Amino acid sequence: MRDLSNGSIPRGFRFGAAKAGLKASGRPDFALIVADEPASAAAAFTSNRVIAAPLVVDKENLTATGGRVRVAAINAGNANCAAGEAGLQAARATCAAVAQTFGCRAEEVFPSSTGIIGVPLPAEKLIAALPELAESLGCESSHFSEAAHAILTTDLVEKMAFARLEIKSGDGAVSEVRIAAFGKGSGMIHPQLVPHATMLVYVLTDAAVEPGDLDGYLRAVVEVSFNRISVDGDTSTNDTVLLLASGASGARIGAGDAAFAAALTEVCTSMARQVVADGEGATHVVELRVGGAANDADALRVAKAIAHSPLVKTAWAGCDPNWGRLVATIGYSGAQVDPGRIDIRFGELQICRDGGRAAEFDEAAAHEYISQREFSISIDLHQGKGSCVFWTTDLTHQYISINADYST
Amino acid sequence: MRDLSNGSIPRGFRFGAAKAGLKASGRPDFALIVADEPASAAAAFTSNRVIAAPLVVDKENLTATGGRVRVAAINAGNANCAAGEAGLQAARATCAAVAQTFGCRAEEVFPSSTGIIGVPLPAEKLIAALPELAESLGCESSHFSEAAHAILTTDLVEKMAFARLEIKSGDGAVSEVRIAAFGKGSGMIHPQLVPHATMLVYVLTDAAVEPGDLDGYLRAVVEVSFNRISVDGDTSTNDTVLLLASGASGARIGAGDAAFAAALTEVCTSMARQVVADGEGATHVVELRVGGAANDADALRVAKAIAHSPLVKTAWAGCDPNWGRLVATIGYSGAQVDPGRIDIRFGELQICRDGGRAAEFDEAAAHEYISQREFSISIDLHQGKGSCVFWTTDLTHQYISINADYST
Repeated sequence: MRDLSNGSIPRGFRFGAAKAGLKASGRPDFALIVADEPASAAAAFTSNRVIAAPLVVDKENLTATGGRVRVAAINAGNANCAAGEAGLQAARATCAAVAQTFGCRAEEVFPSSTGIIGVPLPAEKLIAALPELAESLGCESSHFSEAAHAILTTDLVEKMAFARLEIKSGDGAVSEVRIAAFGKGSGMIHPQLVPHATMLVYVLTDAAVEPGDLDGYLRAVVEVSFNRISVDGDTSTNDTVLLLASGASGARIGAGDAAFAAALTEVCTSMARQVVADGEGATHVVELRVGGAANDADALRVAKAIAHSPLVKTAWAGCDPNWGRLVATIGYSGAQVDPGRIDIRFGELQICRDGGRAAEFDEAAAHEYISQREFSISIDLHQGKGSCVFWTTDLTHQYISINADYST
Repeated sequence: MRDLSNGSIPRGFRFGAAKAGLKASGRPDFALIVADEPASAAAAFTSNRVIAAPLVVDKENLTATGGRVRVAAINAGNANCAAGEAGLQAARATCAAVAQTFGCRAEEVFPSSTGIIGVPLPAEKLIAALPELAESLGCESSHFSEAAHAILTTDLVEKMAFARLEIKSGDGAVSEVRIAAFGKGSGMIHPQLVPHATMLVYVLTDAAVEPGDLDGYLRAVVEVSFNRISVDGDTSTNDTVLLLASGASGARIGAGDAAFAAALTEVCTSMARQVVADGEGATHVVELRVGGAANDADALRVAKAIAHSPLVKTAWAGCDPNWGRLVATIGYSGAQVDPGRIDIRFGELQICRDGGRAAEFDEAAAHEYISQREFSISIDLHQGKGSCVFWTTDLTHQYISINADYST
């Protein structure tokens, strides 16, 4: 569900956006999510060993509060990474000013940053924008979408997803639980979250979930959503997924609720696919379905090798059904492979059978199929029962243009 | 040494080239190296688990002969890979016809192919060109360079390297030993040879070296030359380095000859750098010098992560001194890293110190330095004594143009 309406916004949260002056474009670049009461929180961060200052502070703060967040403060235009002690001071100064504005503890603030790496974050610009930002807060869909817009960098479109479910409590009463997410990410996208960009995603629910249970849901869902996408194979220093539960629906959810997990998976998978679909310069979105691998890890090796092969990705950009490049990539992926047993289909079209060109291979039909903006490639290795689904993009002239002239 | 003259061509070999009609351009596409007598041979092949038909035949033939080659038969325009049994038959038919032409055993023929994957090789075109090719053979530098030209695909220039050394025999007599190499490679370049393209390199010497010793020299040299380069991170199904020793100089060389190893290293390092310098669409050639790693393997992890990062490579294309992308890449390389101790220099310019922007960082000077066609980046991790030198390219619009419209 992508319907943005007031009835889709989880209760217990307010949203706001302002122009702090970090984006050269002068567009809004600072957003807040403010929970009415401290919300249960679980977060997943990049596995990059170089991590940005806000992530260091986030981890400290979540530990200090036992998993409670009052305010998420998110800026675009500067990643606050590789900026040494000054970067940490900027993140902490922002937390302190936000805490003062909203009457909470500094540890209850969750800062996030995205943008250029290696340039000190001017915290004073964020702090100066806080009064205006506090004034602008609201709980309507328009406030939600303004926050979603402010955190974009090279993204072309806002990314948001919604789900609703009904929870029956012990006494038979039925409560509606809402889940909503917004996020950003377009380049430097190969999240490897521990439980992975700079991808920033904020998932909100008005269910009442304890922090430990919330963490369990988050770890499970990132594995099959954000950890299954790649635009360019570059794992960011700032990737963050934050899941907040306000409890404002009154519905209590413990560990192992299948309906809640399914709704959360639907929202996170939608967000992951939206990030890929808006990948820098992307003209094709490709769903890779790898099956018959010796195990799931091997299936993922094959999918990632394909998703990171410049030769495969440029062939897609040219709508070129050059399946030989796929075979070569499968061969160096590190997965257990019998070259004579590889089958490849583009959608329903058999392209390669037993490692060679399929007898029914029709180059014109294959070209037409992969000329679509979204298409699917299925690979069967015939080695076992391992499988995965992975989403990625092509590699285009526009990607080069975007990234060959970023900081200068 | 890159001087092409009759005095630089190892004795005991003849060379030829012809137009077999495999290249759509109609240019020469079939080359032969013919040893006057069966030459000692050592070969290194791709580590890709999908390997082309000629490599299967090469391995069988080298085993059958105990490391002896009479003729190397090399075609461009078709990789003869992923073509099933028909591909093997095409390679064997070529060997049989070459053997008949030159009066040797089919097992003494070493076939190589480069070009598109997945299209059956028309062996009959190669076989039909053999009489003309046999007529054209010669041992002069012009014949050598014609063979070097015929095996090119997307390469813009011929690649060759030469070395000479003097060997003193037990009785005090001095013999001149010559080493010469030609090869090709521009895209799908990340050789991982076991002792790695489609990179094809033929190294010839007129020293007398037994096959087992020759194999030892080859395994050592590929590790510090061809296995230290990457254009696009795609490891080919056809990569081959063949080292042939004719013995025609009369100089016998056993295992562990430092002067011979040094000359061979000079030739192979030159060839590896020539492949990178002609990398598809490359406008910059970058030497990565990683030091202070926990061990050599970690140093190589960092170099490869940088060499394969689209964000780093596009920044180079734009002459953009965006060192933050380097720090991010080092962070996800998998190497042991202390983010606060990373130092980076562009040439002699200190860019990053202790993980943050160096106080003396001068963006204009850094931009000017990396605007050169060839430049060097040094990284010190301060973790130990591991190091490596690695060569790679930028990622440009021209790379996209070359590869987005290859087979169609």
